[in-house]
Parts: sequence; structure tokens; C-alpha cells
Amino acid sequence: MATQGQVITCKAAVAYEPNKPLVIEDVQVAPPQAGEVRIKILYTALCHTDAYTWSGKDPEGLFPCILGHEAAGIVESVGEGVTEVQAGDHVIPCYQAECRECKFCKSGKTNLCGKVRSATGVGIMMNDRKSRFSVNGKPIYHFMGTSTFSQYTVVHDVSVAKIDPTAPLDKVCLLGCGVPTGLGAVWNTAKVEPGSNVAIFGLGTVGLAVAEGAKTAGASRIIGIDIDSKKYETAKKFGVNEFVNPKDHDKPIQEVIVDLTDGGVDYSFECIGNVSVMRAALECCHKGWGTSVIVGVAASGQEISTRPFQLVTGRVWKGTAFGGFKSRTQVPWLVEKYMNKEIKVDEYITHNLTLGEINKAFDLLHEGTCLRCVLDTSK
Amino acid sequence: MATQGQVITCKAAVAYEPNKPLVIEDVQVAPPQAGEVRIKILYTALCHTDAYTWSGKDPEGLFPCILGHEAAGIVESVGEGVTEVQAGDHVIPCYQAECRECKFCKSGKTNLCGKVRSATGVGIMMNDRKSRFSVNGKPIYHFMGTSTFSQYTVVHDVSVAKIDPTAPLDKVCLLGCGVPTGLGAVWNTAKVEPGSNVAIFGLGTVGLAVAEGAKTAGASRIIGIDIDSKKYETAKKFGVNEFVNPKDHDKPIQEVIVDLTDGGVDYSFECIGNVSVMRAALECCHKGWGTSVIVGVAASGQEISTRPFQLVTGRVWKGTAFGGFKSRTQVPWLVEKYMNKEIKVDEYITHNLTLGEINKAFDLLHEGTCLRCVLDTSK
Ligand SMILES: NC(=O)c1ccc[n+]([C@@H]2O[C@H](COP(=O)([O-])OP(=O)(O)OC[C@H]3O[C@@H](n4cnc5c(N)ncnc54)[C@H](O)[C@@H]3O)[C@@H](O)[C@H]2O)c1
Ligand SMILES: NC(=O)c1ccc[n+]([C@@H]2O[C@H](COP(=O)([O-])OP(=O)(O)OC[C@H]3O[C@@H](n4cnc5c(N)ncnc54)[C@H](O)[C@@H]3O)[C@@H](O)[C@H]2O)c1
Ligand SMILES: [Zn+2]
Ligand SMILES: [Zn+2]
Ligand SMILES: [Zn+2]
Ligand SMILES: [Zn+2]
Repeated sequence: MATQGQVITCKAAVAYEPNKPLVIEDVQVAPPQAGEVRIKILYTALCHTDAYTWSGKDPEGLFPCILGHEAAGIVESVGEGVTEVQAGDHVIPCYQAECRECKFCKSGKTNLCGKVRSATGVGIMMNDRKSRFSVNGKPIYHFMGTSTFSQYTVVHDVSVAKIDPTAPLDKVCLLGCGVPTGLGAVWNTAKVEPGSNVAIFGLGTVGLAVAEGAKTAGASRIIGIDIDSKKYETAKKFGVNEFVNPKDHDKPIQEVIVDLTDGGVDYSFECIGNVSVMRAALECCHKGWGTSVIVGVAASGQEISTRPFQLVTGRVWKGTAFGGFKSRTQVPWLVEKYMNKEIKVDEYITHNLTLGEINKAFDLLHEGTCLRCVLDTSK
Repeated sequence: MATQGQVITCKAAVAYEPNKPLVIEDVQVAPPQAGEVRIKILYTALCHTDAYTWSGKDPEGLFPCILGHEAAGIVESVGEGVTEVQAGDHVIPCYQAECRECKFCKSGKTNLCGKVRSATGVGIMMNDRKSRFSVNGKPIYHFMGTSTFSQYTVVHDVSVAKIDPTAPLDKVCLLGCGVPTGLGAVWNTAKVEPGSNVAIFGLGTVGLAVAEGAKTAGASRIIGIDIDSKKYETAKKFGVNEFVNPKDHDKPIQEVIVDLTDGGVDYSFECIGNVSVMRAALECCHKGWGTSVIVGVAASGQEISTRPFQLVTGRVWKGTAFGGFKSRTQVPWLVEKYMNKEIKVDEYITHNLTLGEINKAFDLLHEGTCLRCVLDTSK
């Protein structure tokens, strides 16, 4: 490609300061170094983690930066030693890397690859511990090792999943975060069995994906819990077959669910990021075996608590990151499942905007009617 | 037997009031009703749960009562409909019942049988919701469905494990609580695999049984943690091969263990009953897969906490009651393992006293040198 080895100047949404509107800038994107991949991002969605860091509440947030981590694109060029993808490949950037070599990858017990964390955690690339983004020579930090709110980005090769080139990128970009997180929470972390009772706290994208995961796993009762009763209508399409609004009850929500289910649910999922709901989700589990999975991300510094008796009497407290999916291996498999109509994706997309309209998209994120907003980065 | 169908008057240690010395009394023990078994207790040990209720800190503690739940004896007579044991059988009373019929027993997922809980939780028997113990006509509450600090006790048939009649009752009485709790925490709850790193907080009877369980499960590093360094010498015999005294370090103990194990242990066990140690035990687990099991019983009202991030990054928080063993089915199997010299029991017995010396035995429980004190109830 003509751009290979060259600095590319393109549009990106730069977050200069917490809580200030993102600025669409001409950004310089350096060529990929050894073990790196430069990707032309075609579509990116927004997720709450972007909003959280942007809000300034994330103590690890670094500014100025380019946010974004749920996207799809095409490889523009690769750096030295990169063998698994090449220019022209259709890819999904993966904020959770998979190197297949580190202690974590080799354990077979977790998807939390540790290979590039020391760089992605601080907004830089491993090779020279610098950023590939700059504006007029001033470096701009990477975010989650993905930075997809840009027409071009550079990521580590262990953070790229090569997918079916016939898959629609404006849809499968969602397989970069929220949807796999919910499905995997059920399939990989909780391992829900047929006939189970399930409670889902929060019916946003993640909660709905949990519902779909539970339905395909054969759960019989799928109870959705949300403070916004309008969520039930959509949730039905994803498998939720009972609904509870905590505001309709005087009793704590855990008691409501325990009463409704003759002792509690087999599995519960917290898909909000609220530490008191995390407690309720654990405590509405059935004595002896109920398992609660924390999916939502709480604000920094907040803590969960419960009486230890809850655990001594057999409940299990777990969490999940990216649904436990091994990204490079399993994101392509999820794309296949989507292409075979085995999992939903289109149904989560409620809004389509352009990169230039990204601030409007952030506003939408806080509105009850928006699940996922996909941005066309060409405009 | 001559006593069958009769009220038996015998010696028992009655706890009339919290924190006041137990009183050795002539107690009337009524005959077993339908579904009940009257047992002549020959030996009983003391456990921290007895001391906890006796102290008055247990809000569910009822007085006057007869404490005790780690014992062995011989069936004196059985009530109507009791088929699985008969007079003369050697038995271990089980505070955790196993009916094989309730939702819990049938689930195959837990040992927490629910059949008699509504009675044993409030110090009475199911059949007439009354006590079988009295002193001069005044009822004395049962405790944990066992009340073994008595020469005779009455228990539900679902709470009796029939064991090998050749097993020494002065030893296998320990298989009624602490030892199975520790072994089962490893074998049933954590399911420790060969080669694992294990941290054990608290090296009393329960912690030592965890060590033995971990050793037999093939754990390679077994790190004992206790604020009393004298515990290491004994602990070595049970499999502990490294020792840390938190008092020797300025850093929080979780950091000490994480550093020592290149990222944390695969499994940790809290065997003290201290909520801040429970947190440390979770947080010293390895990211991605470390599992922490709460075995210790905290004082009522106390809560555990941690940052949800600990769970989202792959740690699992569990607990165990009676080590997850199904009592009637598995206590006899544990007795067999002891008879085949596959598990230790004798090694936990540091003191032998008589029922008449029970107050001295309670004092010993709080001394660092005592693991288990076995009382001969004939004296
Ligand atoms: N663990 C991971 O890997 C991972 C990945 C992606 C997203 N997340 C997190 O998952 C969470 C959910 O993401 P989302 O995109 O679905 O968010 P969302 O905002 O679209 O959905 C949250 C839902 O929770 C409801 N809600 C809020 N407070 C509630 C309460 N007290 N009780 C009941 N319902 C309540 C809201 O009405 C909304 O429907 C976020 O915290 C996000 O950061 C985690
Ligand atoms: N879950 C169950 O089914 C079950 C069954 C039996 C006993 N238990 C509980 O298990 C716990 C242990 O019982 P045990 O008989 O072994 O008790 P124990 O008192 O003999 O042993 C506790 C050990 O912990 C050590 N310790 C105290 N504070 C410590 C600290 N801050 N850090 C490190 N070490 C510390 C003590 O020095 C002692 O060696 C108790 O809470 C008991 O109630 C639970
Ligand atoms: Zn996300
Ligand atoms: Zn890796
Ligand atoms: Zn006990
Ligand atoms: Zn039962």
C-alpha cells in the first residue's frame, strides 16, 4: 500500500481533558513497529468504559488520549515479525490480548493475557514504550491498546482478531466488547446449565447479551431486573421471560427475587457496575449452589461487601472480563456464529452516526433508548 | 435394652447462661420419637462453634442449652420408622443432616440438607417441636441438632452416620466436625489439583486438615500463615512446607504472599473466622484463576469486602460448611480412610479430659497449644 511505512494523517476524536467534548483532529499515526499492526478503522461503537475514562473518574485514565475499543477495520500494514495478519485482512481489535505464550494464556484457565498489559495499561506500545499517535508532534496516549475513535490506529499483533472478510464490519464491530462479554459471562464464567433460573441485573447491551446467552444455554426462567421498565419490551426478544423493577417493591430486591424463585436463583449477573446491586445479585442466589457473576465495572475505589455466611452456605462470587473469551481465537468464532445466525448482533444497534458526531453519541449513551451507537469513521 | 422407651437420667453439661461456667447436671433425656435416635455419647470433642455460642455472641444462641457437636457413641434406641440404624450401632452424630430427599440433597450440588433445619436452628426436634432434654421438668434446648456434651442425646435419624464398629470412638469423634471441614474444603469445595500453590490462613485443627487435604491432593507449595510461629513445627507434619507470620512483615499479608508466589496462589483457605483475613486470603490469589475458600466462621454481623475488580479479574470467592461432605454417606467413608491410615486423626488430639472437666477444656481451647481436647463422657 502507498501508505506503508509512512506516517498517516487522518481524523481522530481526541479526548484532551476529562469531561470536555472530544475534538475531531488531524492526527499523525506512525507506522507499526515490530510486532504491531496498523488498522484502518471503518466502524466503531461506544461502550461505557469509554465514557467512564472520559468522565475523569478512572484514576488510570491518561489525557490527551484517543478512546474507543469496540470496532472493526482492515489491516493497512504490519510491522516486522508480524505473521498472523497482513494488509487487507478484516479484523477486530481486541482490548484483551491473547499471545498464547504467557503464563496466563498457557494456563488454560483464563483469557487475561499478560503480554502487553504493561504498555496498554499506560497508553503506550511495548516496542519503544511510546505512543504511535501525535498531533503536531505532541504525543497522544493510546487507550486499552485499541484507540478505535480514529480512522487509523496501531495495535499489538496479539490484540488483533482476523475475521471472515464477508462479515459486515458495521455490525460485527460489536463483537469487540459488550456482546461477547454478556454471552461469555454465561457460557464461560457461569457455565449455566439447561433448566436453570437466572437473574440479570441491568438490561443494557451487556445484560441483553447475558439473556441471549442464558436462553441458548437452555435456562428456563430468565428474570430481568431494571429500574427502567421500558427495558422489558426489548429484553423479551433476547430471552428475558420475567421482569422485576426494584422500584415497584418496598423490600430489598434480593428478597423479592428469593421469594419469586423459592429460595433464590441458580445464577445471577450484575450488568450495571453498581456495588450495592452486586451485593443484591449475590444474595438473591440459592443457598448451596447459587453463583453470581460480576460483569459491570464499578467506579474506582468502590467496594463490594456481604456477610461471609452467604459464601459459607454455598454461594459463589465470581467476575468476568470480556466474558472469558480468548480474543484472537474466539472472536472469529463469534463472527462465524453471527454469520450463521446463531447469535444476534444487529438487534443491539439502535443508532448510527459518524465519527464527527461522536459527542452526540456520548450523550446518547446516557439515554435509556440507546443500546449501541455505531459510528461510521469515514465521515 | 432396659432403658428403651424410658426417660434416661444422666449427666450433661448445661449452659444456663452465656459466658457462665457450664454446670454438670442430672438431665432427663426423653425417649426418641418418630424419626429420632437416642445415642449414648462416649466421647465428645470441643470446637470453636461451641465456644462461640457459649460466649453469647451468637445471636441465634438459645439458653439454657446443651452444647457439643463433635462426638461419637452407640445407639441406645430408635423411634418409630427409623430403619437405617438400630440399638448397638456405632455412630457419629452429624450437625449437618443428610435426608437424601430434599431439594438440597437431590440437587447433587450441596451437602446443606434442609430437612430438619427449621427445628435444629431453634433448639428443638421436628416431631413435636419440643426438646427431649429437661432438668426437673424445665426444658433445655438442643444445639446444632447434636448436643453431645451429654451422656445421652436425641437426634434426628437424618443426622446419624453409622460407622465401622471397630473404629476407636475416642478418636473418630473428631470426624464429626473440624477434620472433615478442612479436608473437604480442599477436596470438595476448592478441588485443588496436583502442582497447585496453596495458602492456609490459621493453623488450628481446621487449617491443619486443609494442609493434609492439600498434600494428598498433590499441592506442591503449601504455605501456612499464622500469627503464632510455634504452629509451624506441628504444621510441617500435616504438609505445610513454608511458613509466614504476618507479624514479621510491614506489608499487608496479601502482598507478602503475592510476592512470594510470583503473582499469587492458586488456592487459599481462611481457617480463622476473621473478616480482614478473609479479604487478604482472596486478594493473595492469582489473577485469572485463584480461588479462595472461607472456612472460618466470623462473628455475627461482620462483613467481608473487597474491590469488585478482584473478581472481574478472575478470582473466585467461595465458602464451605462441613467441607461439603454429605454427612451420612461420607462420614463412614472418612472413618474407613482413617482405619486404612489414609488420613490422620490421632495427631489432632492434644488433650484428653472428662465431661466433668469441661470448663477446663473450654479454657484450653483458647490456648495456643490445644488442637482438639477429647472428653470421656463416662466420668
Ligand atoms: N466485565 C467486562 O469485561 C465488561 C465489558 C463491557 C462492559 N462492562 C460493563 O457492563 C456494564 C453494563 O454495560 P451496558 O453497556 O450494558 O450498560 P447500560 O448502561 O446500557 O445498561 C445498564 C442498565 O442498568 C440499568 N440500571 C441502572 N441502575 C440500576 C439499578 N440500581 N437496578 C437495576 N437496573 C439498573 C439501566 O437502566 C440500564 O438499562 C457497565 O458497567 C460496563 O462498564 C463490563
Ligand atoms: N465452615 C465450617 O463448616 C466450620 C467447621 C468447623 C470450624 N469452623 C471454623 O473454622 C475456624 C478455625 O477453627 P479451628 O478449630 O482450627 O480454630 P483454632 O483457633 O484452633 O485455629 C485458629 C488459628 O488461627 C490463628 N490466627 C488467629 N488470628 C490470626 C491472624 N490474624 N492471622 C493468622 N493467623 C491467625 C491462631 O493462632 C490459630 O492457630 C473457626 O472460625 C471455626 O469456627 C468452620
Ligand atoms: Zn467495552
Ligand atoms: Zn498471553
Ligand atoms: Zn465444629
Ligand atoms: Zn436433605
